[in-house]
Amino acid sequence: MNKLFIIKIGGNILDDPAQLKSFLHDFAAIREPKILVHGGGKIATELGNKLGIESKYVNGRRITDEQTIDLVTMVYGGLVNRKLVASLQQHHCNAFGITGADGNMLKASKRPVKDIDYGYVGDITADSVNTSLLYFLLKQNTVPVFAPLTYANGIMLNTNADTIASVLATALSKHFDIRLIYCFEKKGVLMNVNDANSVIRHLTQKKYTELLTQGILTDGILPKLESAYAALGTGVKEILIGEAADLLKNIGQETEGTLLTLT
Amino acid sequence: MNKLFIIKIGGNILDDPAQLKSFLHDFAAIREPKILVHGGGKIATELGNKLGIESKYVNGRRITDEQTIDLVTMVYGGLVNRKLVASLQQHHCNAFGITGADGNMLKASKRPVKDIDYGYVGDITADSVNTSLLYFLLKQNTVPVFAPLTYANGIMLNTNADTIASVLATALSKHFDIRLIYCFEKKGVLMNVNDANSVIRHLTQKKYTELLTQGILTDGILPKLESAYAALGTGVKEILIGEAADLLKNIGQETEGTLLTLT
Repeated sequence: MNKLFIIKIGGNILDDPAQLKSFLHDFAAIREPKILVHGGGKIATELGNKLGIESKYVNGRRITDEQTIDLVTMVYGGLVNRKLVASLQQHHCNAFGITGADGNMLKASKRPVKDIDYGYVGDITADSVNTSLLYFLLKQNTVPVFAPLTYANGIMLNTNADTIASVLATALSKHFDIRLIYCFEKKGVLMNVNDANSVIRHLTQKKYTELLTQGILTDGILPKLESAYAALGTGVKEILIGEAADLLKNIGQETEGTLLTLT
Repeated sequence: MNKLFIIKIGGNILDDPAQLKSFLHDFAAIREPKILVHGGGKIATELGNKLGIESKYVNGRRITDEQTIDLVTMVYGGLVNRKLVASLQQHHCNAFGITGADGNMLKASKRPVKDIDYGYVGDITADSVNTSLLYFLLKQNTVPVFAPLTYANGIMLNTNADTIASVLATALSKHFDIRLIYCFEKKGVLMNVNDANSVIRHLTQKKYTELLTQGILTDGILPKLESAYAALGTGVKEILIGEAADLLKNIGQETEGTLLTLT
C-alpha cells in the first residue's frame, strides 16, 4: 500500500509566524500523499473578546454556544483554514480546505446532553468519513486541509482536531499505509513532565497501560493518547508524537519524538 | 453535452432568512449538475463595524486593505460559505465549499495599481480556472459552492462574485451546455428602472449595444451585463437574469427574467 501522512497541528504552531512558516515549508516538502488537520489557536479567543463573546466553561469543559460556533466557523473555517491553504499553494502544495460539511466529509452526531450540555459539539467515528470522496481527492494529488469543524442536521459543529486526525487515519487505513503525526509543543510523551528531555521513545499499548496505572501520564497528553490508541486499535500502524520541526525534517525516519504502536 | 447550471446569488438573498430558506430549497431541487456562487451581504460590514474596521472607498470604489481581506476571508470564506454548505447538505445536496485557493481553483492576478490601489483584489479570466479538478468534483456529484475569494502569491484576494460565475461558465463551456443564472433583487433587466415590471424578456448583443448607446441601462446592472456578455462571447450560450424565486421554480423553462443571448 502507498504511504499516507496525516499530520495534526495546533495553536503552538498556528499562533507563531516563524514556526508556522517553517512548518509550511517542511509540510509542503513531503512528497508522499498527505493530509493536514489543524486546530484553533488564540485568534478565536482574541476575536471573541473584541466581539464580547465570552468563553464559557462548565466543570472545566468548554461549552460551544451559538455565538461561539459562529465565531469558530469564521475563524477556524474561514481565516485560519483559507490562509493555510493559500500559503501552501505558494509552496507548490495543492492544498484543499475542508470542513466536515464539504462533500459530507465528516458527518457528526451532536453530542448528546447528559450531565453537561456541550452545545454545538460534534462527535465522530470512522464511519463518519466520506472515505470515497476523500480518496478521490488524494488521487487527484490534492492535499486536504481539515478545519476542526464537522456538521450534523445542517449546522456546523466544533470537533477536536486530534479526534479528526485519528478518525481520518482509521477510515483511510484500508487504502493506505498510514503514518499519523501529532505535532505539539513538547518533544514527545514525557516520562517526567518537568524534564523536557525525558522523551519516551517507544510506547506500546502494554507500556501505555502501565504508565496510566502508575499515574505517570499527565492531563495534557491523555486525550491525545486516547485518540491515538483508538486509531491504533482500528488499523493504523504507527503514530508519532512530538515537535513539528523534529518530526517533519526527517519524515519517514524514526529519529525524534515518541513512536506509538500496539505491540 | 450535459446541462450545467451556474447560479449566482448576492446579499439580497443571503441577508434575508426567509428568501435564503426558499432559495436553498429550490436550488437543492435542481436535478442537473450545478454550481453556486455567492457574494457577500451585510454581515461583513456589520462585523467590520463591531471590530472598528472601516469600509474604505476611493472615487466611489471600495478598497480592500489588509484588515478588510481578513474580514471577508472570515465572513465570506468562513461563516457564509460554511453555513451555506451545511444547510445544503441538510437539503440532500452534496455541497462542497470552495475559494480560489482550494485546489488552485481560481488563480488570480492581484489588480495592478494604476490610478487607484484597490488593495487585495483579484482579477481572473477563464484561464484562471483549474477546470480539470472542478470537472472531477462535478463528476463525483458534488455541488461546488464558491465564495467570492481568489488568491495569488499565497494570499487571499477579494473578487466579484458575478465575475467568478461568468469565468467559471466560460471555463466549463467545453464540457457542459451551460446555463448561467444571475439572481438579483429585480425581476430582470428593466427598460425603465422606475417600473419593476418593465422587464426586457430577451436581450441580444445588438439590442444590448443599442440600449447602452441610448443610456437606458443604469449603473447597477452594467457590471452584471458586462460579465454576462463576456461569457456569451466565449462559449456560454444563454444567461438568465432575474429574481431567484422566479428563475429557480421553473428552471429550464423560459418563463421569467431576462434571457441574454449573443444573437
